[in-house]
Amino acid sequence: MQSFEQLLQQFEKSFNKRHFPSEPASLYDSSQYILGIGGKRVRPVMCLMGNELFDDIQSDAWDVGTAIELFHNFSLIHDDIMDAAPLRRGVPTVHANFGTNTAILAGDVMLIMCYEYLNKVQATHKGKIIALFNKTALEVSEGQQLDMDFERRAHVSFSDYEKMIELKTSVLLAASLKMGAIIGGASAGNASHLYEFGRNLGIAFQVQDDYLDAFGDPERFGKQVGGDILANKKTFLMIHALEHASGAEKDLLLSLMQTNPSDKVEKVLNIFRNVGVNEWALKLKKEYLEKAFEHLEAIAVSSNRKAPLEQLAHFLIQRDH
Amino acid sequence: MQSFEQLLQQFEKSFNKRHFPSEPASLYDSSQYILGIGGKRVRPVMCLMGNELFDDIQSDAWDVGTAIELFHNFSLIHDDIMDAAPLRRGVPTVHANFGTNTAILAGDVMLIMCYEYLNKVQATHKGKIIALFNKTALEVSEGQQLDMDFERRAHVSFSDYEKMIELKTSVLLAASLKMGAIIGGASAGNASHLYEFGRNLGIAFQVQDDYLDAFGDPERFGKQVGGDILANKKTFLMIHALEHASGAEKDLLLSLMQTNPSDKVEKVLNIFRNVGVNEWALKLKKEYLEKAFEHLEAIAVSSNRKAPLEQLAHFLIQRDH
Repeated sequence: MQSFEQLLQQFEKSFNKRHFPSEPASLYDSSQYILGIGGKRVRPVMCLMGNELFDDIQSDAWDVGTAIELFHNFSLIHDDIMDAAPLRRGVPTVHANFGTNTAILAGDVMLIMCYEYLNKVQATHKGKIIALFNKTALEVSEGQQLDMDFERRAHVSFSDYEKMIELKTSVLLAASLKMGAIIGGASAGNASHLYEFGRNLGIAFQVQDDYLDAFGDPERFGKQVGGDILANKKTFLMIHALEHASGAEKDLLLSLMQTNPSDKVEKVLNIFRNVGVNEWALKLKKEYLEKAFEHLEAIAVSSNRKAPLEQLAHFLIQRDH
Repeated sequence: MQSFEQLLQQFEKSFNKRHFPSEPASLYDSSQYILGIGGKRVRPVMCLMGNELFDDIQSDAWDVGTAIELFHNFSLIHDDIMDAAPLRRGVPTVHANFGTNTAILAGDVMLIMCYEYLNKVQATHKGKIIALFNKTALEVSEGQQLDMDFERRAHVSFSDYEKMIELKTSVLLAASLKMGAIIGGASAGNASHLYEFGRNLGIAFQVQDDYLDAFGDPERFGKQVGGDILANKKTFLMIHALEHASGAEKDLLLSLMQTNPSDKVEKVLNIFRNVGVNEWALKLKKEYLEKAFEHLEAIAVSSNRKAPLEQLAHFLIQRDH
């Protein structure tokens, strides 16, 4: 069994090449550009780990991992256009650098290239892998659409937001693991438990992300605290606060979201604390993490094979902040 | 052997359904919208014809035809964004109706849905079909990028323009026929001749399109004459005129393209006539059509099987204007 770091190193080595033709450079250089600005490569490594949970890593897992990482970058290119984001990982986004029209096409060819890698998968698994990939790709697009819809909606319920996060973030992590499991010859039951492990882990990660934005230690977190609050982003915390604040506090929250006083972050955090959002969020994260581990537990392979996935979960989801 | 019209009727019947989930409607209704505004469905019917040239039509041909038509509509949605086109077939484009962000996603899910249909193809043909589909999809994207690049370039050579048209327009027609041929069990040689038939036919069609814009009978053509000239579009005609006009005429052409006098179309057409662009274009169209028919001729099946494709070519490429 190999650790996340060991597999990451190998994946980086295999992924670090040009994935597109040389010409027209005006198109393909812009696709290749985003692959060169880094990334944690979590999803393809999860595919490799999903495979190794059940069997030695097959060559198909490298191709599917590559397709997954290309899909993730495709979604970043198009999402950055929709969000009008000027920067990603500290450098200009594809559309900022090459123009919106080329960025649309750069995403399109990235998505097509995913299927070049998926088409290399051996015939016995190809149909299943492409079906799961397609289902997931549609869900990620649905999540992005819901995220945009929610921005324009006054009220978003907890379950609506949870569904959106599940689609936009979690299902790709879950499917990465499950595609690996399919390649590793897992039974349908085991593959499904691994999917649920990834899905719950992904939601726990998003709860943590939302929590750290509000209550994280800026020195350890490395980001300005309250970025989501300043941007009026709907988060697990804000949605819970709006659903549970008293009448006066709810009115204050809503009015703070419409204005931008200099002490906005401080005032919103005060309401969050009064409502008990911080403890609630930590409890919510713990619940999702526990559900994730229940599914990992239920997979019928020896527990030493599960160690790298446990380590990954603990690396992604910290116990203290 | 069935005629284009017979196959069209059957394809329309099978294609005329919702191809997307119901929710989120904000996303999928916008994808479904463009499928409901009509279209000639030439490409999927060419896939059926490519199949029937060699064998009875297999169920795979309907799925691949559906994927091809969805791909064509995907490219229309994204191209219309890039071209900032307000109308298509007399109704608002997807981005005009639903916003650019949703239109980007509506195209993305349309492209993903192509592979849902391709994934239904029987295992013996799936790898080959997906490979040709991917190659073609990349080429169509390259063609769109070159078209945008050429708009910003002062000089575009005949061969550059021909290459762009081949990628943007012809290869999808050619691949539609060839995918049908693969499903019909054609030999590699026959499939390749059929591809070349479609590729040359596609270029002949574009030459005719460019010709009709300048020299077509407006009553029979149904469009304003000179639309391309008014829009300063590079066309087969304009590129030939710029390459062959005398010094003074070339200067006049270039200055007409930078200004918009009320008699612009008339003046440009005069230069076209002086340079002999009209006869040249008809000759060029004829050459491509002849090449197309040479390849159709070379396919080793009885000539009565080829009759529907001959009729289609004569329907698409008129002898008189």
